[in-house]
Amino acid sequence: MKEKESQKLEIKRHSLAHILAMAVLEMFPEVKFGIGPAVENGFYYDFDLPRTLIPEDLEILEEKMKKIIKENYEFVMKEMKIKEAIKHFKKAGQPLKVELLENLKNEGEKIVSVYKSGPLVDLCKGPHIQSTGEIDPSALKLTKISGAYWLGDENKQQLQRIYGVAFNNKKELRQYLFQQEEAKKIDHRKLGKELDLFTINQNVGSGLPLWKPKGAIILNILKRWFEDEQIKRDYFPVITPHIGKKTLWETSGHWGFYNDSMFPPLELGQTLEDYQDNRQAKESETYLLKPMNCPFHVSIYNDDKHSYRDLPIKYYEFGTVYRYEKKGELGGLTRVRGFTQDDAHIICTKEQLAGEMEKVIDFVQFVLEKTFGFKIKAYASFREKDEKKYLGKSEDWEVAEKTIVDVLKSKKIDYTSEKGEAAFYGPKIDFKVKDAIGRYWQLSTIQFDFNLPARFQMTYTDNNGLGEQPFIIHRALLGSLERFMGVLIEHYAGAFPAWLAPVQVGILPVSDKFNSYAEKVSSALKGSGVRTEMYNQDEGLGKRIALATKQKIPYLLILGEKEMNEKTVTIRQRGNKKQQTISVNKFIKTIQERIKQKK
Amino acid sequence: MKEKESQKLEIKRHSLAHILAMAVLEMFPEVKFGIGPAVENGFYYDFDLPRTLIPEDLEILEEKMKKIIKENYEFVMKEMKIKEAIKHFKKAGQPLKVELLENLKNEGEKIVSVYKSGPLVDLCKGPHIQSTGEIDPSALKLTKISGAYWLGDENKQQLQRIYGVAFNNKKELRQYLFQQEEAKKIDHRKLGKELDLFTINQNVGSGLPLWKPKGAIILNILKRWFEDEQIKRDYFPVITPHIGKKTLWETSGHWGFYNDSMFPPLELGQTLEDYQDNRQAKESETYLLKPMNCPFHVSIYNDDKHSYRDLPIKYYEFGTVYRYEKKGELGGLTRVRGFTQDDAHIICTKEQLAGEMEKVIDFVQFVLEKTFGFKIKAYASFREKDEKKYLGKSEDWEVAEKTIVDVLKSKKIDYTSEKGEAAFYGPKIDFKVKDAIGRYWQLSTIQFDFNLPARFQMTYTDNNGLGEQPFIIHRALLGSLERFMGVLIEHYAGAFPAWLAPVQVGILPVSDKFNSYAEKVSSALKGSGVRTEMYNQDEGLGKRIALATKQKIPYLLILGEKEMNEKTVTIRQRGNKKQQTISVNKFIKTIQERIKQKK
Repeated sequence: MKEKESQKLEIKRHSLAHILAMAVLEMFPEVKFGIGPAVENGFYYDFDLPRTLIPEDLEILEEKMKKIIKENYEFVMKEMKIKEAIKHFKKAGQPLKVELLENLKNEGEKIVSVYKSGPLVDLCKGPHIQSTGEIDPSALKLTKISGAYWLGDENKQQLQRIYGVAFNNKKELRQYLFQQEEAKKIDHRKLGKELDLFTINQNVGSGLPLWKPKGAIILNILKRWFEDEQIKRDYFPVITPHIGKKTLWETSGHWGFYNDSMFPPLELGQTLEDYQDNRQAKESETYLLKPMNCPFHVSIYNDDKHSYRDLPIKYYEFGTVYRYEKKGELGGLTRVRGFTQDDAHIICTKEQLAGEMEKVIDFVQFVLEKTFGFKIKAYASFREKDEKKYLGKSEDWEVAEKTIVDVLKSKKIDYTSEKGEAAFYGPKIDFKVKDAIGRYWQLSTIQFDFNLPARFQMTYTDNNGLGEQPFIIHRALLGSLERFMGVLIEHYAGAFPAWLAPVQVGILPVSDKFNSYAEKVSSALKGSGVRTEMYNQDEGLGKRIALATKQKIPYLLILGEKEMNEKTVTIRQRGNKKQQTISVNKFIKTIQERIKQKK
Repeated sequence: MKEKESQKLEIKRHSLAHILAMAVLEMFPEVKFGIGPAVENGFYYDFDLPRTLIPEDLEILEEKMKKIIKENYEFVMKEMKIKEAIKHFKKAGQPLKVELLENLKNEGEKIVSVYKSGPLVDLCKGPHIQSTGEIDPSALKLTKISGAYWLGDENKQQLQRIYGVAFNNKKELRQYLFQQEEAKKIDHRKLGKELDLFTINQNVGSGLPLWKPKGAIILNILKRWFEDEQIKRDYFPVITPHIGKKTLWETSGHWGFYNDSMFPPLELGQTLEDYQDNRQAKESETYLLKPMNCPFHVSIYNDDKHSYRDLPIKYYEFGTVYRYEKKGELGGLTRVRGFTQDDAHIICTKEQLAGEMEKVIDFVQFVLEKTFGFKIKAYASFREKDEKKYLGKSEDWEVAEKTIVDVLKSKKIDYTSEKGEAAFYGPKIDFKVKDAIGRYWQLSTIQFDFNLPARFQMTYTDNNGLGEQPFIIHRALLGSLERFMGVLIEHYAGAFPAWLAPVQVGILPVSDKFNSYAEKVSSALKGSGVRTEMYNQDEGLGKRIALATKQKIPYLLILGEKEMNEKTVTIRQRGNKKQQTISVNKFIKTIQERIKQKK
């Protein structure tokens, strides 16, 4: 959506908050108004009401709002002296508004604006639409009621918040609601529980997922596959610790520029008594949990002397990093405090930049498009012109930015470039993917770094025997494995392709009589590297099929008299109602082929 | 060695410290004596001397010691009042001894013992041998001189310390010196550097190895292989974070019983300013780096309800844990602060214990004996009788200890059992391996745990529908991957078998003319999953062969005119002087077969 349109829609949403307030005022003349902003996809308003709302109230309020829209009330702005405004809202019996005004007064405000629409006069900065009739009444919906502390302060009174969503037209609303319904069904938190993939345990900590066997199997397969793909492309593994001395993070600049996102320091050598008594440690050394892997990879590079003949050097690591996020901002696998990056650093000469960038983008396409079938969109982030806030030589920025544009163009990749969006240490390309229900997720990132080579005095000997500073390209294609898993779970709606499915084949003997045949089939499959699970507990076959189907297993094998006698299996393939009976060996070959093809 | 013999040898070593002091007194009559204890393999003595010692002095002193031994001086003990002793040593011009005596006096000692041997009178608790002649003069050697602060206090004066080693006889000494020489050659710190496997960087932190590509390749191969072996044996992967809430470690008992070995707490929500100003965090949550993986695995178990039909459940993880060790105790890969355990927890019923224990021991034998060719020795640790210091029901201990003995006996494994060596939470078996030069290293450990099931209220439903507490067996077969790598490097003296070697094939074109053929051979090998490295820099072939040989690569391929024309390779196999020329395809098959056989 273009920026102007999006601003217009936000104004409509804010106006709808007022319209909601008008409806509430009609229903509860004693209402005390809190605040009512526009938010993503809609709006909300906080009210102090004489009784607790029930879901049915939303329908009534929605009807009232539609009537108000039809009646086409004008929004009229009026400026008032703050003292006058306080007097007005006191008289109107609106103590929450008075509190807001007192706060504004204490901050030195003299004049405030109020908006009148019909019988409602609301303290508000605006702007608003001209009149309520501008809204399409078929494009709005009140969605939920929740509790909210006044001004978000848990020491203050609790109000009732009503949420609504609103769009430009009915079609957009329906699209949104449909996507919401779909998103709810495939929510990775819900599916993660149903499919037994992971759990988040409050005794362990927020934002620290525990991978249960079925989730860990998928993660391990992803890691092996991606490791092999990296090795094919001349990347080399490194393995580094999860903590490093504070001085290392001072050298890298992370402690200076990034400490808000870092976990607090560990004072090594401090004993329990030291800690409890707030004493200084005897053998004092301060360590930090790593928020990034870069300084370790650079330290490995710097452990040896390098010649131009060694370059490019590509180090990769599945590095688990820890970043501090506020508890309220955590959610499922997509916002966590500990996550594993598929991190790599390409250290190369200026002349190698274009070639390496091209290879990385090929790799992105191989991974996101070819392997997982995502559509991708690229976002190039450049510096602003004439800005002195960037590190590194201007000519290096020019080379790097030109390399990005050239490569994206030559590969005919759809991209947006954003000036001023680059990090202070270099330009970058991010790749977003479109999932099965049309949402975009940022996954891959490729970033130049003009900071670390200088800070760590990295060097190589050029072909004249002179010391040169190499370039670094940071690169993560899956991004974070946790986030990638979250996206994959939703993208596949939990129905993982056979190569990733934690259980590839569910085995269901028709009755106890066929358990030993079922065991034989299972052993044959396991011996061929296929992951199976036996469904032979005493419930009836129908119930067991339902259970296995809910687990979204790619193949279910039904085994009875006929199958046992003929050494066959009857296959129910996921999403295919037609059953098929083939020999055990043929089935093994079929599924092995499918796994090999990453289907 | 039996205990009595070992005590006798320690007395000899202590007496040798006095004999050394006698020799020094003869050479430097002005010497001031510090202290001279017995230590592992020998003894040392600290002296204040008029000049700095040089290595040649050791030979002179050794000769003097042998003469003293021959002269067979008696050791005569005499008790003295402490005041009298102070007077004596003041008069004798021995201020350090006077300082020791003053300290003893302040601690309330009244009587001290001194030992006279020839012209030396030394303050000493004893005991000693009867006379110097008891020592075998051919079984001692002075090994080194170093500086040492008086009483280990860096604010006090520096003395000169002389170290010696001593054994019962010449043969034992020679064996020890030979092993020392051998150990020096294969020291994993030295080989780790030469073979470019890992580095320890003081800017990153002590005891935190950084794995360079060649070391990381070996580690990753070990992990994949061991993971596959675990999957074959019905273990399931889990993946857990490196930090957990302090309350979790309180529940598990680690924070109470194990905090000396844990890193200090992380106060979450503390900002840089909070930290610098010693302020309390606003959103306070305390986390700890994990010293063990157990509480996470138990949390995963407890995330679901379990029935007896689900058991045994076997979770495995390569879990990187962090434990605090004093800086002075760290060394190479064998004593580190961060290490990765091949950790697994077997959760089972009482009836399953014996079967599971047997399977684990089979697995130990498969790994240590069959795969790596180590000889193993088992050490069973049991509780002391009638001791109330152990957790868990007495009958569970009996079952567990009986299981250990039964299984070790039935498998005819050579084992020692040690009463009183069990942890408070359960009995265990440790396995030590004998390396190529005869040293023992502890690797595998199998431990019962009666603590965690109770603390975390673990449960399963038995076949009567009643809740039962399961048993836990902890198990790590490689132990720590870092330590295991250290042992492997030394065991193989850096010459890793082909399946583990980071470079399996070194490729050496005779001259530039054959570079493109060399590239073709390299590609063919890489395409077949073989790790190659090209040695085609401009030095002469001889120098390149020497370089590649020093890297202990299993196969070197020499490629020239004849090889190019006939599509062959000339092979120099490590440790085999005879060259052999075979077709490229045949070589690929040969090495693939070797890798498959783990040779």
